[in-house]
Amino acid sequence: MIYRLGYAQLNVSDLEKSLHFYEKVIGYIKTKQEGNKAYLRAAEEFDEYSLILNEDKDNVALDHFGLRVSSEVALDDIKKKNEALGVEVEEVQDKDHGRVLKVATPSGHPVAFYHHSPQLNVYHGENKDVILPMRRTHLQNGIPPLRIDHMNLRVPSVNTEWNYWKNFDFSISEYVESADGNDKYAAWIRREPFTHDIALVHKQVASLHHIAYIVDGVAGVIKTADVLADAGYRDNIEYGPGRHGVTNAFFLYIKDPDGHRIEIYSGDYKRDLDQEPIGWTQEAYEKNGRLWWGAEVPESFKETTTINKNWMKEKIY
Amino acid sequence: MIYRLGYAQLNVSDLEKSLHFYEKVIGYIKTKQEGNKAYLRAAEEFDEYSLILNEDKDNVALDHFGLRVSSEVALDDIKKKNEALGVEVEEVQDKDHGRVLKVATPSGHPVAFYHHSPQLNVYHGENKDVILPMRRTHLQNGIPPLRIDHMNLRVPSVNTEWNYWKNFDFSISEYVESADGNDKYAAWIRREPFTHDIALVHKQVASLHHIAYIVDGVAGVIKTADVLADAGYRDNIEYGPGRHGVTNAFFLYIKDPDGHRIEIYSGDYKRDLDQEPIGWTQEAYEKNGRLWWGAEVPESFKETTTINKNWMKEKIY
Amino acid sequence: MIYRLGYAQLNVSDLEKSLHFYEKVIGYIKTKQEGNKAYLRAAEEFDEYSLILNEDKDNVALDHFGLRVSSEVALDDIKKKNEALGVEVEEVQDKDHGRVLKVATPSGHPVAFYHHSPQLNVYHGENKDVILPMRRTHLQNGIPPLRIDHMNLRVPSVNTEWNYWKNFDFSISEYVESADGNDKYAAWIRREPFTHDIALVHKQVASLHHIAYIVDGVAGVIKTADVLADAGYRDNIEYGPGRHGVTNAFFLYIKDPDGHRIEIYSGDYKRDLDQEPIGWTQEAYEKNGRLWWGAEVPESFKETTTINKNWMKEKIY
Amino acid sequence: MIYRLGYAQLNVSDLEKSLHFYEKVIGYIKTKQEGNKAYLRAAEEFDEYSLILNEDKDNVALDHFGLRVSSEVALDDIKKKNEALGVEVEEVQDKDHGRVLKVATPSGHPVAFYHHSPQLNVYHGENKDVILPMRRTHLQNGIPPLRIDHMNLRVPSVNTEWNYWKNFDFSISEYVESADGNDKYAAWIRREPFTHDIALVHKQVASLHHIAYIVDGVAGVIKTADVLADAGYRDNIEYGPGRHGVTNAFFLYIKDPDGHRIEIYSGDYKRDLDQEPIGWTQEAYEKNGRLWWGAEVPESFKETTTINKNWMKEKIY
Ligand SMILES: [Ca+2]
Ligand SMILES: [Fe+2]
Ligand SMILES: [Fe+2]
Ligand SMILES: [Fe+2]
Ligand SMILES: [Fe+2]
Repeated sequence: MIYRLGYAQLNVSDLEKSLHFYEKVIGYIKTKQEGNKAYLRAAEEFDEYSLILNEDKDNVALDHFGLRVSSEVALDDIKKKNEALGVEVEEVQDKDHGRVLKVATPSGHPVAFYHHSPQLNVYHGENKDVILPMRRTHLQNGIPPLRIDHMNLRVPSVNTEWNYWKNFDFSISEYVESADGNDKYAAWIRREPFTHDIALVHKQVASLHHIAYIVDGVAGVIKTADVLADAGYRDNIEYGPGRHGVTNAFFLYIKDPDGHRIEIYSGDYKRDLDQEPIGWTQEAYEKNGRLWWGAEVPESFKETTTINKNWMKEKIY
Repeated sequence: MIYRLGYAQLNVSDLEKSLHFYEKVIGYIKTKQEGNKAYLRAAEEFDEYSLILNEDKDNVALDHFGLRVSSEVALDDIKKKNEALGVEVEEVQDKDHGRVLKVATPSGHPVAFYHHSPQLNVYHGENKDVILPMRRTHLQNGIPPLRIDHMNLRVPSVNTEWNYWKNFDFSISEYVESADGNDKYAAWIRREPFTHDIALVHKQVASLHHIAYIVDGVAGVIKTADVLADAGYRDNIEYGPGRHGVTNAFFLYIKDPDGHRIEIYSGDYKRDLDQEPIGWTQEAYEKNGRLWWGAEVPESFKETTTINKNWMKEKIY
Repeated sequence: MIYRLGYAQLNVSDLEKSLHFYEKVIGYIKTKQEGNKAYLRAAEEFDEYSLILNEDKDNVALDHFGLRVSSEVALDDIKKKNEALGVEVEEVQDKDHGRVLKVATPSGHPVAFYHHSPQLNVYHGENKDVILPMRRTHLQNGIPPLRIDHMNLRVPSVNTEWNYWKNFDFSISEYVESADGNDKYAAWIRREPFTHDIALVHKQVASLHHIAYIVDGVAGVIKTADVLADAGYRDNIEYGPGRHGVTNAFFLYIKDPDGHRIEIYSGDYKRDLDQEPIGWTQEAYEKNGRLWWGAEVPESFKETTTINKNWMKEKIY
Repeated sequence: MIYRLGYAQLNVSDLEKSLHFYEKVIGYIKTKQEGNKAYLRAAEEFDEYSLILNEDKDNVALDHFGLRVSSEVALDDIKKKNEALGVEVEEVQDKDHGRVLKVATPSGHPVAFYHHSPQLNVYHGENKDVILPMRRTHLQNGIPPLRIDHMNLRVPSVNTEWNYWKNFDFSISEYVESADGNDKYAAWIRREPFTHDIALVHKQVASLHHIAYIVDGVAGVIKTADVLADAGYRDNIEYGPGRHGVTNAFFLYIKDPDGHRIEIYSGDYKRDLDQEPIGWTQEAYEKNGRLWWGAEVPESFKETTTINKNWMKEKIY
């Protein structure tokens, strides 16, 4: 069983620049740095990291994202399902995760399935005092982000990609019908009882639209814009704040120094996985779905980030 | 598979009084009233209700609580597991839920397992405009609460009760060792990747300590105390605000007109079900677990509410 | 001595429609209604009202605004100063305020100076229990707004208008130089140690740009947009949220059913009246002053509302 | 004319320890350190500092507090008034403030009147870009506090002390009648249209109860407790959060390493200086005034801090 989105790895052109943005300004917490890679966590996460910044200036892209599964046995099951679907699986070993299954989805999105996830220690001192990861507010700066929430992926065909993910017990929370009724324009899919771990939205070229992090309520979203503008990153605030009708997301979209888009938002809503998907007609979506309220979507919002096309060829992980 | 806590039914002595408290002051939304029963939902819930107030002045108590399961097949499975455990199951029909399995847990707690849950309509008008349940802020009053979160139950033996629930794939998020090391003092158990759907805490007599609702962040918790005091219910504010070390809960405990205790809180944290439980020694718990910061626990906090002892004998549901 | 902005009177085309907007949706509290006029207060005000809605469909405009002065003697002083400046003063009696001095400023803005202001009763019951006006949260709906803050007026010459107001011990907090250096583009002027009671901004035609109300922090500003959109008033959200560099205002601009613009904001900053005005060059203003961050100013934002041109001719007040 | 409370100087036993508390944990911004003294400001202040920590371990006390007056001429006036009242005035020169009038009030409270107050520079770079003091959120840590608000002083006779301050155009916002009706139990007095710059409360020995700082809403108050507990200062949280009936203050009282009490609160309300004081009978005060809601006042809350008794004898300032 897939639990959830675990982490994303972004290839960046200049690690120092990116760390200034993510760590010093936004307030991600760096848990380690090894060679070209910095590992960052958000403030309420128990995982050692949910964001890997990898300096690779010739390959600025979404390198891949990782989905955590419930057990090693569940990994076997995922491997079998992929093979049954005719999807190539590369099994590799990773220092942090142990066994990792590498897959490119039908649209080409680079995914890593893994079970083992290094965890922060919660026991401190000789008396085993418990200190939870989020109880470090005196050491925090920036917003800070609280936890990773979802990937928003662009795919040439939403139905094709959905047909892949539904094999892994994903559920659609909401979707938008396409104009011609043959495909979907978009679908928000999840393994957790919220609106999405992954959003699939139609675009000719498979690519990354954004990675989303949850912050502390609407005030946390506004603080993001304040902190960025105060730190001289006003041009990195692309769009928002505003509220989408679909998923009820109160959003702010920002761009990192390489143009990777991060959505800062205050959370969606809770709804059981078995409930009927909520369907928006194109008309309803145009009217209220794309935007419940807020400024019009800017032209730049159509731009997306390259995804790693060599994911399955990289034998050394 | 059990999804989550779905609702609780409280027997109250005076429905009108209780509705004034819950609906007019706190801001629960009444979706229907039938005979002695009023059905209330919190603002972000898709279920028609998560709280039933049942006027029954001779039996003021927690009547029972409901756990939603993933399918009718899952209900069959739960029935079998109970029977295998030697726990009596009564299968009844309920107008709202269809098939319901009634069970008294080893400690005697009254539980209903059900799959079908009446849902709010999200489609409006001839064009099928989507209006999500939480997008009715212009009609809200009070705090309002956002969604039900957990039951805090007192049980004579935490291990005995836990031995029951672990058969249904519950996971312990945190626990407190008992002084003598033979039992646990408390365990927070969950089917969702947060800290608890049910808290089990030692007390000689099986009883209800509180039902918890999530509100909008810490400001929502403070607003609860303001609204109650302004409305003349200051004496119904029992304890808080403060923060527990265990589960990181920022809490306020209030009492309804019959003394049923409701916890108003701003949420806990997210952590996968398979992760190792976080264990507090008695010493660590006394030091930081019971209270991360805040006023000392008042004497009244030891009091609990009666649970319905006739749950399994009530043939008509 | 002038204390502060006390109230504004808006002429509206349909009182019922306006009350639905201001009272039922936004959450202003109606304290009385007499004939064509409804009197509204914000939640933390001790004055009986800060907004008068006057149905006068042939004269939809800012009817006038009132400035509260410290005493009857201070009124005498204001009268003398106006006369010395050659500004006509009409002295009238008003049921609520007693003596009122009516003036049209050099740009023609309709002002009422008054001392007496009807106050809410804070004593209740036979024991003289004190209940402050804001401690009625259980009766509130909407946002609600907390208190009136400022008028934003357009004037043909900022210096000309400023030369009038400086006689009454107003102080400039911030200003923007004009392109040619002869006039100012804008000036924020105040009698209280915040950024402004009145903003003066250049426009050919003297008119009203907006009336501003303070709400409860940035979350209150966002709630405004949510409440409006949920209530079907999405098109009444004109611009924002965003942050101005000048005055540090976190803003949302909304329009009432007649197109009167209300700014909903979370407050500015505190600074003594004697401090040197902060001057923005045109360049600095264009770069960071107009907008610290947020979406570009929409074209509609140049539009302003008519002001009552018959203010000094209306003998009966 | 007195404008407002400008700053307080606390004598501390260990400057390093105090700076860790105030600067590193709470988030005060240190603007300079000279010899034994560190000068701190809150995030929204234009003054270079509002808190001076002075290491003087043999004289841990409130050294004095400063009131800013509107002009040098106003200082003359204050000098004359004091002399007319038979209150000794020492005129000294201070590097930061220029002319300073030192006074011990009838109860012995150490006060400095001054006009000149060093201000932060708001112009930056060759283009005179304006950056307001509060627009440095990317450099902030801790809560942070936003601005100084009031001093809470204990005095043997409220009326005696009030009889002094009323000569300087202070106004009472609220007061509590004494049990015998001869004196007042407490009075909240102000020069700004909020509830108080100074609170006077009866106690046999003139002393300091607390200095209050405003933070960002109720969430800022809660964050204070979180940050302190997380940083290991849980025992420095003395009382709260809760709400007073008098002044509507949502409060948290904390203690610095020397036991000086700081109130962290989210602000009071606005009301004109000329309005009739709001009077609480002892009965009303006991019922709702001391506490609108919250935990009972702890015994320790009666403790107060020594005030500097040598203020008028210290010829070198
Ligand atoms: Ca999600
Ligand atoms: Fe998103
Ligand atoms: Fe709880
Ligand atoms: Fe404005
Ligand atoms: Fe205070």
